[in-house]
Amino acid sequence: MIKVGIAGASGYTGLELIRILSRHPEVEVSILTSERYAGRPVSSIFPSLSGWVDMEYKNFLPDEITDNSDLIFTALPHKKAMSVIPGFLKSGKKVIDLSADYRIKDPHIYERWYSGIHTSPELLNSAVYGLPEIYRIEIRSASLVANPGCYPTSVILAMAPIMKTDLIDKDSIIADSKSGISGAGRTTDITFQFADCNEGVRAYNIAVHRHIPEIEQALGILSGEDVKVSFTPHLIPMTRGVFSTIYVNLREAPKPGYLLEIYKEFYKDEPFVRLMEDGKSADTHNVMTSNYCDIGIKVDERTKRVVLTSAIDNLVKGASGQAVQNMNILCGFREDMGLDTPGIFP
Amino acid sequence: MIKVGIAGASGYTGLELIRILSRHPEVEVSILTSERYAGRPVSSIFPSLSGWVDMEYKNFLPDEITDNSDLIFTALPHKKAMSVIPGFLKSGKKVIDLSADYRIKDPHIYERWYSGIHTSPELLNSAVYGLPEIYRIEIRSASLVANPGCYPTSVILAMAPIMKTDLIDKDSIIADSKSGISGAGRTTDITFQFADCNEGVRAYNIAVHRHIPEIEQALGILSGEDVKVSFTPHLIPMTRGVFSTIYVNLREAPKPGYLLEIYKEFYKDEPFVRLMEDGKSADTHNVMTSNYCDIGIKVDERTKRVVLTSAIDNLVKGASGQAVQNMNILCGFREDMGLDTPGIFP
Amino acid sequence: MIKVGIAGASGYTGLELIRILSRHPEVEVSILTSERYAGRPVSSIFPSLSGWVDMEYKNFLPDEITDNSDLIFTALPHKKAMSVIPGFLKSGKKVIDLSADYRIKDPHIYERWYSGIHTSPELLNSAVYGLPEIYRIEIRSASLVANPGCYPTSVILAMAPIMKTDLIDKDSIIADSKSGISGAGRTTDITFQFADCNEGVRAYNIAVHRHIPEIEQALGILSGEDVKVSFTPHLIPMTRGVFSTIYVNLREAPKPGYLLEIYKEFYKDEPFVRLMEDGKSADTHNVMTSNYCDIGIKVDERTKRVVLTSAIDNLVKGASGQAVQNMNILCGFREDMGLDTPGIFP
Amino acid sequence: MIKVGIAGASGYTGLELIRILSRHPEVEVSILTSERYAGRPVSSIFPSLSGWVDMEYKNFLPDEITDNSDLIFTALPHKKAMSVIPGFLKSGKKVIDLSADYRIKDPHIYERWYSGIHTSPELLNSAVYGLPEIYRIEIRSASLVANPGCYPTSVILAMAPIMKTDLIDKDSIIADSKSGISGAGRTTDITFQFADCNEGVRAYNIAVHRHIPEIEQALGILSGEDVKVSFTPHLIPMTRGVFSTIYVNLREAPKPGYLLEIYKEFYKDEPFVRLMEDGKSADTHNVMTSNYCDIGIKVDERTKRVVLTSAIDNLVKGASGQAVQNMNILCGFREDMGLDTPGIFP
Repeated sequence: MIKVGIAGASGYTGLELIRILSRHPEVEVSILTSERYAGRPVSSIFPSLSGWVDMEYKNFLPDEITDNSDLIFTALPHKKAMSVIPGFLKSGKKVIDLSADYRIKDPHIYERWYSGIHTSPELLNSAVYGLPEIYRIEIRSASLVANPGCYPTSVILAMAPIMKTDLIDKDSIIADSKSGISGAGRTTDITFQFADCNEGVRAYNIAVHRHIPEIEQALGILSGEDVKVSFTPHLIPMTRGVFSTIYVNLREAPKPGYLLEIYKEFYKDEPFVRLMEDGKSADTHNVMTSNYCDIGIKVDERTKRVVLTSAIDNLVKGASGQAVQNMNILCGFREDMGLDTPGIFP
Repeated sequence: MIKVGIAGASGYTGLELIRILSRHPEVEVSILTSERYAGRPVSSIFPSLSGWVDMEYKNFLPDEITDNSDLIFTALPHKKAMSVIPGFLKSGKKVIDLSADYRIKDPHIYERWYSGIHTSPELLNSAVYGLPEIYRIEIRSASLVANPGCYPTSVILAMAPIMKTDLIDKDSIIADSKSGISGAGRTTDITFQFADCNEGVRAYNIAVHRHIPEIEQALGILSGEDVKVSFTPHLIPMTRGVFSTIYVNLREAPKPGYLLEIYKEFYKDEPFVRLMEDGKSADTHNVMTSNYCDIGIKVDERTKRVVLTSAIDNLVKGASGQAVQNMNILCGFREDMGLDTPGIFP
Repeated sequence: MIKVGIAGASGYTGLELIRILSRHPEVEVSILTSERYAGRPVSSIFPSLSGWVDMEYKNFLPDEITDNSDLIFTALPHKKAMSVIPGFLKSGKKVIDLSADYRIKDPHIYERWYSGIHTSPELLNSAVYGLPEIYRIEIRSASLVANPGCYPTSVILAMAPIMKTDLIDKDSIIADSKSGISGAGRTTDITFQFADCNEGVRAYNIAVHRHIPEIEQALGILSGEDVKVSFTPHLIPMTRGVFSTIYVNLREAPKPGYLLEIYKEFYKDEPFVRLMEDGKSADTHNVMTSNYCDIGIKVDERTKRVVLTSAIDNLVKGASGQAVQNMNILCGFREDMGLDTPGIFP
Repeated sequence: MIKVGIAGASGYTGLELIRILSRHPEVEVSILTSERYAGRPVSSIFPSLSGWVDMEYKNFLPDEITDNSDLIFTALPHKKAMSVIPGFLKSGKKVIDLSADYRIKDPHIYERWYSGIHTSPELLNSAVYGLPEIYRIEIRSASLVANPGCYPTSVILAMAPIMKTDLIDKDSIIADSKSGISGAGRTTDITFQFADCNEGVRAYNIAVHRHIPEIEQALGILSGEDVKVSFTPHLIPMTRGVFSTIYVNLREAPKPGYLLEIYKEFYKDEPFVRLMEDGKSADTHNVMTSNYCDIGIKVDERTKRVVLTSAIDNLVKGASGQAVQNMNILCGFREDMGLDTPGIFP
């Protein structure tokens, strides 16, 4: 049984951490912070947790967090995260950071895309990118896990097996992603109001979204060469889910079923990756509230491209579920502990 | 570990039974029938269950079901249910029936509301109405549990404590219920298509819905006198959830907090009933995918009425979750086994 | 051709006024104010209006508004509205006010429900409640029209014909209303975010909603005696629409079809009221984006109650469409000018 | 005033034709056919049209249609359409066909993608592809207009200006489209039920969708050379709207604003095409229920690609609105007659 604190526990990812951890048999949630709701019972703000969480939100006091936690999840805005994490690490605590602050290895790239100085670049080297399907071994002994973004998780898992082959033109990768509105966070922004969003699809941050360098870094490491990716995120009128459709040029059309075999081999021991049969598409509805990433593979011989589809729940495998998976690995728990549920359908 | 069969396992309630039971530590799902999908793997129809259910749907053959099950859930249309349940009982199996066929004690009332002959009225006496908060003791030793309807569950739980008092005018009960579209079942009816339903609210079967005699029977037993209820169901554009708003005339306005105290006492040991504080309303979003029934109590001194609100997930506490709760009671398992999850928010 | 100004034109009702008036053949929209967006082109904030409105939002300057308008719509928060309307009237302009400030005739009642002093009670007498089906003649010569609330419109139109009869028990009226989220206005409130609202139904302000005195005043005048109403508003996950289900005790059950005849007679010349046949329910989907109010009438002989259903688009007949209808009456235009569209289905 | 018949008037596109034409000043709708609803009043099936359409659905009898129509819209399934259109043309009527049967000029290509014999290939040459922005002159004198598909409309309009330049690599076109569920038609298919679709995104018919040859034909003609396109359609949980995101490799990055100028010039006289400023994305919410196609243009200098976004209402510009636009052109009416409305927001 370990004691876990969550810094920033009233946004959607913090809330989802509470929900998942409230059922985790090896965890006691010991402290929850929220500037917005400090002093108020968690279950008065989120009555869905009534009967599960009997705590109040606290103001953010670093010492109080370290005193009460063996491991700390930071679900804070980027920049805010890196202002407190070095302190947590110094006090000997393990940290799993859901912000973007330690995902990019090169501080110059971070600073270009996130416009601002990185204040603890010395930690970037030891921080481990928390995608267990790629970095499980490194996560086991990490002090600081940089939990991946939702879009990168969906794109990197769909691309990883094929990046290691010679089958594709690595300059041709185009990722078109669709996200539910919870991906925008629990904000007061008027454009995420129900009536503004409903019945609308829109792209945003085309060609400049901050998840681009994160995707490019991971795909580049996998393939052993620099990679540039076109990435377009969209918001669609649903609560949860990220769906990515990825287009890649094939050097030559592989034999039928060959790609699926490569993917099956690559993911054969993975508890949270499922492959669709027969060229079928993934569907976010099938993974809702679960930690799965479903992947579909379709070869288009006519255009000599492969079209990959992947579906995750943005708040689970795309954020808090993956963070718990990382905690399980780091603490030596069974990897699916607290995450062993199928998707909700309907 | 018991073996459980589900007759009619490809509708929404059958599917939800599979989902819940796939995580139940004391149950092995042994046979699943579906006329529509016989011979096809469950996970090919419902990929959300991929990795959880490695079975094919079978045709409905009563002997095959009884040979392979210790306990049988029937999620069949009414009338179809009562054509097979007597046989299941004769072969010594316990049955939990999600249809309406054994909910109404008086076969004449059944026949009036469901237009048709009841073919096994001799079982009505021993069948137990499966609302554990009222009939837990009887459920323990039942052979046949008649699992309540979704609307009745939401209305009866909201009304039970006050029905036992002298505070209200029992002829004044009006229940206005709102249901997500999954409540209509997984049918091919064109009026439940997404585009037909979205952005629409409509009442249906006003004053003639078949859940009326079920509600009246339960409230009548609780109060010890005949009760007539006005009940109006509505469909609203969401997937899951039943919300009931119930209006009752008060003989006299009780002291502030008095009603809440009565409810707290009545439900003090119940694992799945939660009471809202301070006159707040329940919200279906707070119970989504969970087995909770949340209840709100608001006294309107101006009009001398009490306004009760209740929220359940129609597929969980309103159907399959409650059926599993009944199975747990009947089999001596911990009552919340397989049902111990908070609601999903957001 | 008249010049029309809109004070408060960036909320949902102001925006809907712009949309409707942009197609009105007798109106030139001359000035639009918005504190939030002053100086910015309307079509840059709301690209749906691109090609239709080539104006910028202005700061709120009363003189600029009166100088540029023959008639002014005020879509301002209550209290703010009554701080500027007396000035508009003094400068000789007609005003149609979408706030609540001049709807309640008795300033004491206003002050009790809206907690604050009414600063221009001398105008309450001459202000006309803008429900054309009841007050058409008075609207023709009004200077100040108090445009009704969305809930009151749906409840009063459903009740008006029967209030004038002796058929009902006037103390028994219960109105249960369901609103789309746009009814909450275009605010930054976090609880109206898409992900917070989706898949949720909740009641709010039970027994204390400010539309209660407005409903009671109108029904009281119609029936000639004081009336108390139980009213519960709910938010449901859709953009537009108000649906009201109203329960009333009948003194005796009328002959079949008798009530429908009364309603047909009452509304026989009304362009925007439609009656459902055969006891069918209204449906908000059928009136979406139109100015119709659809009404269904169902007698429940078993409980001796009548159940009325009514459906409007909360932003059209429940706000801006009705405001334009009032303008048409007041200015002598054809009453359906700019409003002559069927509902959008699907 | 012309008399117009609609063959197949109870699906979503037929229904939308009725809605639009009911407000068209130069049209009298004279006959509506529906096998499903023959003999029943239109407004009893679709109460949204109550007060607007006082007709009954008729069985499909070709002579009755030609006897009563000057112009016929066919909103029938493909193959069914080509079985009746030759007869309509022989009787001297103009036909606007919403099916796919006359869109593809080469019958072999049609037969490969639609698997079946084309039974009137002799009409393919004279049939005009009804995209007014490209074929307005030919439409004026057409007898048979092949109304474009929803996806092709959104893709071709976004691509047309740039196809005529030398700026792009024409083998690199990738179109990723997202459609509301009404695009699937008004069917009894269980997978389009509300609860199955809600909260789900899925691709379908990847690389094999029948709109591919239609897109390739149009882009090929525009560019003067054969073009192959990768096209992936997706279903998302909303009622109306098609959004396309299109990726094309640039031979060299153009000067800022250059592409927007090309598009402005190309569409400068078009009443129904709007261009987004400043690289902003289109949004389906902005065009809902209108005949607009909104287009956004974003150059990504980093990857040397242009990302185009386009948004239409699939039932209006993607089907019935465009069909009415074609009728207006063909009959010499003002092109926006009956279509002069802004989008509905919110």
